[in-house]
Amino acid sequence: MASPARTLWKRFSSTITPRPGPPKAHHHAPIPDSSFPKGYLAGGVHCGIKKKAGLLDLGLILSEKPASAAACFTRNAFKAAPVVVSQDVLERGGARARGIVVNSGCANAVTGKKGMEDAWAMVRAADALLDPPPKEGAASETLVMSTGVIGQNLPIEKIIAGIQAHKDKAKLGAGFEAWERVARAFMTTDTFPKLRARTFTVKGREYRMAGIDKGAGMIHPDMGPPASSGQLHATLLGCIVTDAAVSPKSLQDALTYAVERSFNSISVDGDMSTNDTIIVLANGAAAEGREIDEATDKEAYEAFKQELTSFAIDLAKLVVRDGEGATKFATVTVEGAPTYSDAHKVASRISTSALVKTALYGQDANWGRILAATGSIPLSSPIDPTRVSVTFVPADGSAHLPVLVNGEPEKVDEVRAKEILSQEDFEMRVDLGLGSESAQYYTCDLSYVSAWIDCCYGSDA
Amino acid sequence: MASPARTLWKRFSSTITPRPGPPKAHHHAPIPDSSFPKGYLAGGVHCGIKKKAGLLDLGLILSEKPASAAACFTRNAFKAAPVVVSQDVLERGGARARGIVVNSGCANAVTGKKGMEDAWAMVRAADALLDPPPKEGAASETLVMSTGVIGQNLPIEKIIAGIQAHKDKAKLGAGFEAWERVARAFMTTDTFPKLRARTFTVKGREYRMAGIDKGAGMIHPDMGPPASSGQLHATLLGCIVTDAAVSPKSLQDALTYAVERSFNSISVDGDMSTNDTIIVLANGAAAEGREIDEATDKEAYEAFKQELTSFAIDLAKLVVRDGEGATKFATVTVEGAPTYSDAHKVASRISTSALVKTALYGQDANWGRILAATGSIPLSSPIDPTRVSVTFVPADGSAHLPVLVNGEPEKVDEVRAKEILSQEDFEMRVDLGLGSESAQYYTCDLSYVSAWIDCCYGSDA
Repeated sequence: MASPARTLWKRFSSTITPRPGPPKAHHHAPIPDSSFPKGYLAGGVHCGIKKKAGLLDLGLILSEKPASAAACFTRNAFKAAPVVVSQDVLERGGARARGIVVNSGCANAVTGKKGMEDAWAMVRAADALLDPPPKEGAASETLVMSTGVIGQNLPIEKIIAGIQAHKDKAKLGAGFEAWERVARAFMTTDTFPKLRARTFTVKGREYRMAGIDKGAGMIHPDMGPPASSGQLHATLLGCIVTDAAVSPKSLQDALTYAVERSFNSISVDGDMSTNDTIIVLANGAAAEGREIDEATDKEAYEAFKQELTSFAIDLAKLVVRDGEGATKFATVTVEGAPTYSDAHKVASRISTSALVKTALYGQDANWGRILAATGSIPLSSPIDPTRVSVTFVPADGSAHLPVLVNGEPEKVDEVRAKEILSQEDFEMRVDLGLGSESAQYYTCDLSYVSAWIDCCYGSDA
Repeated sequence: MASPARTLWKRFSSTITPRPGPPKAHHHAPIPDSSFPKGYLAGGVHCGIKKKAGLLDLGLILSEKPASAAACFTRNAFKAAPVVVSQDVLERGGARARGIVVNSGCANAVTGKKGMEDAWAMVRAADALLDPPPKEGAASETLVMSTGVIGQNLPIEKIIAGIQAHKDKAKLGAGFEAWERVARAFMTTDTFPKLRARTFTVKGREYRMAGIDKGAGMIHPDMGPPASSGQLHATLLGCIVTDAAVSPKSLQDALTYAVERSFNSISVDGDMSTNDTIIVLANGAAAEGREIDEATDKEAYEAFKQELTSFAIDLAKLVVRDGEGATKFATVTVEGAPTYSDAHKVASRISTSALVKTALYGQDANWGRILAATGSIPLSSPIDPTRVSVTFVPADGSAHLPVLVNGEPEKVDEVRAKEILSQEDFEMRVDLGLGSESAQYYTCDLSYVSAWIDCCYGSDA
């Protein structure tokens, strides 16, 4: 893009809006080494997919012990090769895996037979780093993810060389520095690496989990467990690893629940990718033999499921905060729905409405747009307009602002509305008055800056 | 908006893009008086809803003879008062009506009991202009439409005075000039009045139809016949009147078919309004007693249905051409689908994809975004990626450009792609390779100009 235009754009943006977007760098900060799960090695290198030297584009996570594995994959019909291969690895390996390999810069999507061969080559190269590696003829134990441009083949020699470089164990580590390198290797249009770690307890025993994700555009995931065939979407990649021990079935069930309420409840641009993947490993390095299983100990399982869900929501929110061109983070809460699915559908519709998202950027208390979006999809019971209420909830904890009560517009204090809408975080709460189910969705504003980015630069899978 | 910002924006737009958007005024031109249907009087005035004097905001169409009436209304749960009232008029009147009254500037949506009273007052005031007016105690014969701001009450005294002013028959006419005034009274953010008229023949007999519509934002209608309860959407208003005679049931059936393929197959911003309404009147003024009815003469009915559908598509396309900030008109054709509904769903998904629409503005041959959108929704039979082809079809009749053939990316000539994408009109054709059904959808590009308009100005219902 020509420099005079960029200069003009900058002047224009600063004149039109005093909000060039909040700084985002503070969403990434050092995490104590002790918060990272035991029994994993992590590493990231620049292998040469991204043109600029020093930009990491290949990441590895290796478990030192056998681990349960679970995953949710995009339901897009055009599943990229790494998605198909990872599903296959999980199936053949009986939901056990020890390795994760990821590359950014090229999505290996819509690449036909060559793409499948390349994805398998990545898996086998990473398998060889496992200690011990899978026996000759045994199933692979590495899951693979790719993100970047659609329709191009991977520079597979560079990638294999990058993986093999990790035979030098000095390239791997177990602390923040190593994990941060993996997080950087996930990045495409992301403006900061997305890495979190925490300790948690289940029945008095302490465990840790670490998680990484990436995504800034083509974000509107709808992922299901491997068994759910058919359609899939958006490029969101993520992984969560823990040193708890969880049975494979319980791990998948907990992940499916968590993904529905986290990664499947975010939208940046409403577009789903061909590569979306979330992987979880549980190696039990801190479990001393105690395996969490829903069949034998419901209470432990529920505690783990809630922990995983809350952690997944934290990771998912980071993607929305880093949405291309976004300056605002909005929570859409739909309450009083007849079913969770109804609440989720309405929240999703509001979160993807271009008119709601532009009004959010414009700091315009346009509840008419929220209402029009709310009423635009069929639910299991019809909406009764006289029972619907809409409330603006400020992020600073100050008083709520009802804008519609039981279908009747409130006399809205415009100054107060502006005060609420000028904050970076904002929640709109829609009560359908039909039942007791609720759902939350996380979205960002749509500015002319976001549109400009999408017009001039590609969002990749 | 401050003037320095506007100046900067103008400079920015002209630097960034050599395409400030095509001129649109030529979409409105005089039509010979002889093309307008017989037996109707039309008129439009400024009654004072819009602040600027001279801007028409109230329109009337009166049939001199009894007429069959049919309509499709938005499926949004938050139906505006005029929608509820018009449905009621149609039901009570046995699908017969003689009058249409429309106002712009205020949508009379989410206005509770007062809104209903106001809509009925408009109906009764227009009823009084009919010759003869409905008998004391008989059903009303006027249908009502409103468009504009949501959540505000109508300035009903001004509107009633505006309607009553038409007792002076000099304010009504039957030719282009009078119809153009009605079309102007429909306008909100529209940049040109949307009026068409044509003659057509059914079984050798000549008839005429005239049509008006409006809409530039909050455009993604989904309208059904009055009987279909439940949800509805977007502000698109339109009416079509003809001097053919058509039985009420056949008129509704033909309209439902036509609306599905025209107004329900367009998208500007993907948002549905609370007021969408399409009304058809058929007064038989040129029929000399020959009524078109599907039960007695299938051939005549099919001919009329096709005529109505093609006319409705013409009107619907005008709305897309006038989409807020739009510079391009795109046809999305989905072929080889198992069912019409599948084809329509995929075409709709592609048409509303923010990433497809921004790539269109960016003149970027990004078929990956088209594919990701195509694969993102479940169909009645699963998509087989190896059978999907995508072709760019230039508007100038030159050679098609295949970009994906049976799931394999073609080596795309970028210069040729740019040549095709730089034209104002563009068609993308997706062949699913699954069946023989097809559907078309009409959409526009999404530029930073469109986003800017939606951020800074309200799109109304």
